[in-house]
Amino acid sequence: MGFFFFASRAAARFLGEARITHPSVSTAALLVAAASGGGLVAYADSAGENASSEPSQEAPRKKKVVVLGTGWAGTSFLKDLDCSKYEVKVISPRNYFAFTPLLPSVTCGTVEARSIVEPIRKMLEKKRKDVTFYEAECFKIDASKKAVHCRSAVGTNFDGNGDFMVDYDYLVVALGATVNTFNTPGVMENCYFLKEVEDAQKIRRNVIDCFEKASLPNISEEEKRKILHFVIIGGGPTGVEFAAEMHDFLVEDLVKLYPAIQDFVKITIIQSGEHILNMFDQRIATFAEIKFQRDGIEVNTGFRVVKVSDDLITMKSKSLGEVSVPYGMAVWSAGVGTRPVIMDFMQQIGQTNRRVLATNEWLRVHECDSIYAIGDCASITQRKIMDDISTVFKMADKDNSGTLTLKEINDVIEDICIRYPQVELYMKSMHMLDIRDLIKDAIGDSHKESMVVDIEEFKKALSHVDSQVKSVPATAQVAFISICKRSLARVNILRFLKLCQVAAQQGHYLAECFNKMDQCKEHPEGPLRMTGTGSGRHNFRPFRYKHLGQFAPLGGEQAAAELPGDWVSMGHSTQWLWYSVYASKQVSWRTRMLVVSDWTRRFIFGRDSSRI
Amino acid sequence: MGFFFFASRAAARFLGEARITHPSVSTAALLVAAASGGGLVAYADSAGENASSEPSQEAPRKKKVVVLGTGWAGTSFLKDLDCSKYEVKVISPRNYFAFTPLLPSVTCGTVEARSIVEPIRKMLEKKRKDVTFYEAECFKIDASKKAVHCRSAVGTNFDGNGDFMVDYDYLVVALGATVNTFNTPGVMENCYFLKEVEDAQKIRRNVIDCFEKASLPNISEEEKRKILHFVIIGGGPTGVEFAAEMHDFLVEDLVKLYPAIQDFVKITIIQSGEHILNMFDQRIATFAEIKFQRDGIEVNTGFRVVKVSDDLITMKSKSLGEVSVPYGMAVWSAGVGTRPVIMDFMQQIGQTNRRVLATNEWLRVHECDSIYAIGDCASITQRKIMDDISTVFKMADKDNSGTLTLKEINDVIEDICIRYPQVELYMKSMHMLDIRDLIKDAIGDSHKESMVVDIEEFKKALSHVDSQVKSVPATAQVAFISICKRSLARVNILRFLKLCQVAAQQGHYLAECFNKMDQCKEHPEGPLRMTGTGSGRHNFRPFRYKHLGQFAPLGGEQAAAELPGDWVSMGHSTQWLWYSVYASKQVSWRTRMLVVSDWTRRFIFGRDSSRI
Repeated sequence: MGFFFFASRAAARFLGEARITHPSVSTAALLVAAASGGGLVAYADSAGENASSEPSQEAPRKKKVVVLGTGWAGTSFLKDLDCSKYEVKVISPRNYFAFTPLLPSVTCGTVEARSIVEPIRKMLEKKRKDVTFYEAECFKIDASKKAVHCRSAVGTNFDGNGDFMVDYDYLVVALGATVNTFNTPGVMENCYFLKEVEDAQKIRRNVIDCFEKASLPNISEEEKRKILHFVIIGGGPTGVEFAAEMHDFLVEDLVKLYPAIQDFVKITIIQSGEHILNMFDQRIATFAEIKFQRDGIEVNTGFRVVKVSDDLITMKSKSLGEVSVPYGMAVWSAGVGTRPVIMDFMQQIGQTNRRVLATNEWLRVHECDSIYAIGDCASITQRKIMDDISTVFKMADKDNSGTLTLKEINDVIEDICIRYPQVELYMKSMHMLDIRDLIKDAIGDSHKESMVVDIEEFKKALSHVDSQVKSVPATAQVAFISICKRSLARVNILRFLKLCQVAAQQGHYLAECFNKMDQCKEHPEGPLRMTGTGSGRHNFRPFRYKHLGQFAPLGGEQAAAELPGDWVSMGHSTQWLWYSVYASKQVSWRTRMLVVSDWTRRFIFGRDSSRI
Repeated sequence: MGFFFFASRAAARFLGEARITHPSVSTAALLVAAASGGGLVAYADSAGENASSEPSQEAPRKKKVVVLGTGWAGTSFLKDLDCSKYEVKVISPRNYFAFTPLLPSVTCGTVEARSIVEPIRKMLEKKRKDVTFYEAECFKIDASKKAVHCRSAVGTNFDGNGDFMVDYDYLVVALGATVNTFNTPGVMENCYFLKEVEDAQKIRRNVIDCFEKASLPNISEEEKRKILHFVIIGGGPTGVEFAAEMHDFLVEDLVKLYPAIQDFVKITIIQSGEHILNMFDQRIATFAEIKFQRDGIEVNTGFRVVKVSDDLITMKSKSLGEVSVPYGMAVWSAGVGTRPVIMDFMQQIGQTNRRVLATNEWLRVHECDSIYAIGDCASITQRKIMDDISTVFKMADKDNSGTLTLKEINDVIEDICIRYPQVELYMKSMHMLDIRDLIKDAIGDSHKESMVVDIEEFKKALSHVDSQVKSVPATAQVAFISICKRSLARVNILRFLKLCQVAAQQGHYLAECFNKMDQCKEHPEGPLRMTGTGSGRHNFRPFRYKHLGQFAPLGGEQAAAELPGDWVSMGHSTQWLWYSVYASKQVSWRTRMLVVSDWTRRFIFGRDSSRI
């Protein structure tokens, strides 16, 4: 009780201070109601003079920035944006940011849903007053009118119409992706998903439902097997981590609470590819498969799900043809889809037949002057140097001699590498030290100092460079596999990585650009313009993904082996998880403490199996 | 991080120990699935031999006890029952016990829903294996067949029929009460309730919804006022505490997060009686009303709600007639109703036109041999001594003289007082020291020692005693009103009391009776039988509610003033709340710690305003 009293008093002091700094805030609201006294005065008609909705006309109008979405990208952008320079409006159907890598943990109650969310308004509280948040869904982007059409999720106004329009000067699209069922019949109706916090909560409730259902009398063994068959469709990081969480929940908690039915439980992963986790290094996949086999989790690779009815999953394989299995609960974690609003917008701007919005290297959507797209709903198309080769040559050829000397090349090589990162990547992959080696390769080994190239030789030298353009940023395919040292191994794979880190870095980058927009117009800091007719410098350096390096120094018990772009580590999985939470800039101290306190709760009391 | 690592290691050790003591449990489940290996073997057909559903035929059959409900009464019964003596089956649509006094706190996120629930299976884990839990709702009690009919809430079996029947030797009905709308039109459709954990969660989500809705653009001031008008119908303890919680949530958290709309918020309580909290001492009601007025919470007394449409509440008062007010959210906390299954059962056994089941003083339902009812769904009908007066006289008149001497009366007076507690209550209220005073009153002041009464005089002496029979147990109308010393006062009224404490004590009493049933058949410990033709003693003493005394010694800052049956205390409200949680026998250390940790979270970080 001592601790409690201490906390109580500390908080009282804390609240007392808060009251001193905002004395008017806490009383204003009360006077309205208090004034209407004992009788029934339905509505006091006050607050007419302090209506704050009108913009102040005196100051020079700030540019309007509208941010769509409050996921990793949108939140990261908002956190770093200097909101005093813009009139910022944020529109999202969720008034919170969710730390998505922990979603699989929420499904089994290892972590509470509330611990991994961060209210956006709380985040914005520290910002200036120029930020407005609307809990609504954007259903149409109108680039010609520079406006977005939105619809409130929570209801309509008196006219029965909850739609509204918000105009912008700059639009930041950070809407993320949605579930992709590949139009498989029955998936939407019968499967659970792992995209939103609500999804995880639904799964948690349903897992308990299945156990309670199987505990009822008059349930045959066959039915029990059916009800307690948990099927995960899709062997990507989310599906794999959910399977591991389910297994832990089962072994650590449910076995004790439902001893009569423990023998009927089965977890199955269905994967269409040859291996689970096939986007990662083969060693990781093999390792996870062996672990799962040891834990009794069945992995069915090479099966494509073709139909999900309310009690059967039908799948196809090359060797076995169509097979149907009864199931109790199915979680669909295969495939990422495009949101309808993005689809519609892509059609407007002629980006048809794409999954995500194409942006340039500065994250601006192609052909759209003031629309930026970050995170999962966008991808950067890296310009090929061969498309601009004559402009590049002309720009480098300062004396207009028709040939480039080594000095001329050296003068612009930094800008070239910034603008076309594939040049650097290519040289690295070819183990070349500098541009000289590249040129040498093209013109043959000639005498050193008087090295001179004409346009054809220059083209030849750079002709293979663009092969390095894949998806830029080169996706950091980093997986953490951490194995608990306990007898029943636990596999935790954090998909932190592409999904979250790239999005967060893009949000951060874009916010920095917005913050120094005026400054960079006068003093551009980007590379020389080498495309079309442009001259001078780009305002900003293009976005580049920085590899997540801070996980390296974690010493101690686990032996970390660095693979090219991959990490495999054996150690305390929770330690890794904790570090991933701890290291994320997105996360407040509140979330960090809540997550740790949830883990502590679980360690001491186990997971809660109440059906709420 | 030090703390975290410590916890992690401690837990690992703890889990390690658990594994050692139950080595088979954790592996058994896994082998089944592991055996089916790489291919797709849909279902392993094992576990045939270790099916444990068949009862062992050798031991003498244990009596079957079926418990309906897992509220205060049912859980308390289960906790104290010696489950090794019976075959116990528990049936409830909720697989958890909820600490209901904290429900109003859940509505605003002061405490998390999961912190106030206790999984029943966790509770039963410590008991022998003879306890079975079914998550289902009992929809019919069939006393003639000694069976209950149940329906699963979570689904049906293969035959499409989730109904099942459970037979009993003893039935303990602890189903609680339900909401009573008094058939007011529109209440079921448009109001929120505060009965279940889910209700509280829904309210929490809706409060945030209202604030988000009012923050949208294109919402007029009139609409904002409507949306942010929170109406509580019913000024009982639950309604009052919810209003206080809402007010705190508003002033402490929401005002900072929604500064633009704070002036539009209003909280109104509608109460049909002349005062709120009218079941308590007048001083408490007055005090709460003054507090609420100061806090800006409007209290409309004397208004009866006659209709709730989707945006208007219509109410009637004697002086003003019908008035309609627009509202954003309405919480109905007026009135307690009877569950349909209880209604149906009462009709079967001829207890028509009652709100709750009538039991005798041993908590057995009248006219039902083996059915007991405890908690909110039952009330005890105390037998009147005048109905048994001749039997009592005969029993006391050992020498069959037709008169009773003082000694004869003194020999049985203890049994009389146990059987008819109203005798004692009457003497106390008349300031009589012992039975002599009562007799004296009846026969006039005669000589002391040779005091002798005949049947008429005996009747006369006891004729007024039964006026003390009201509702037994004399409901402990205890209210804790605690006021925070902060500038904006907080009123917390714990309705712990009648609702929870009586139920818990009844559960405990009944469990004790069940535990010593065999023993008391041989050595009855109840009072002498004084009704009908019975002779000898009752097996048990009748149930009597014990006044909750343990709250007295709480010293410190608050000045506690004891009123007859009431407590009014000024001090730290959370301290009281904590003590109420701490003192409850129902509550595990898990819940205690979670509640404290929730409070600590709130003190440090404020309440969470995410809409999940």
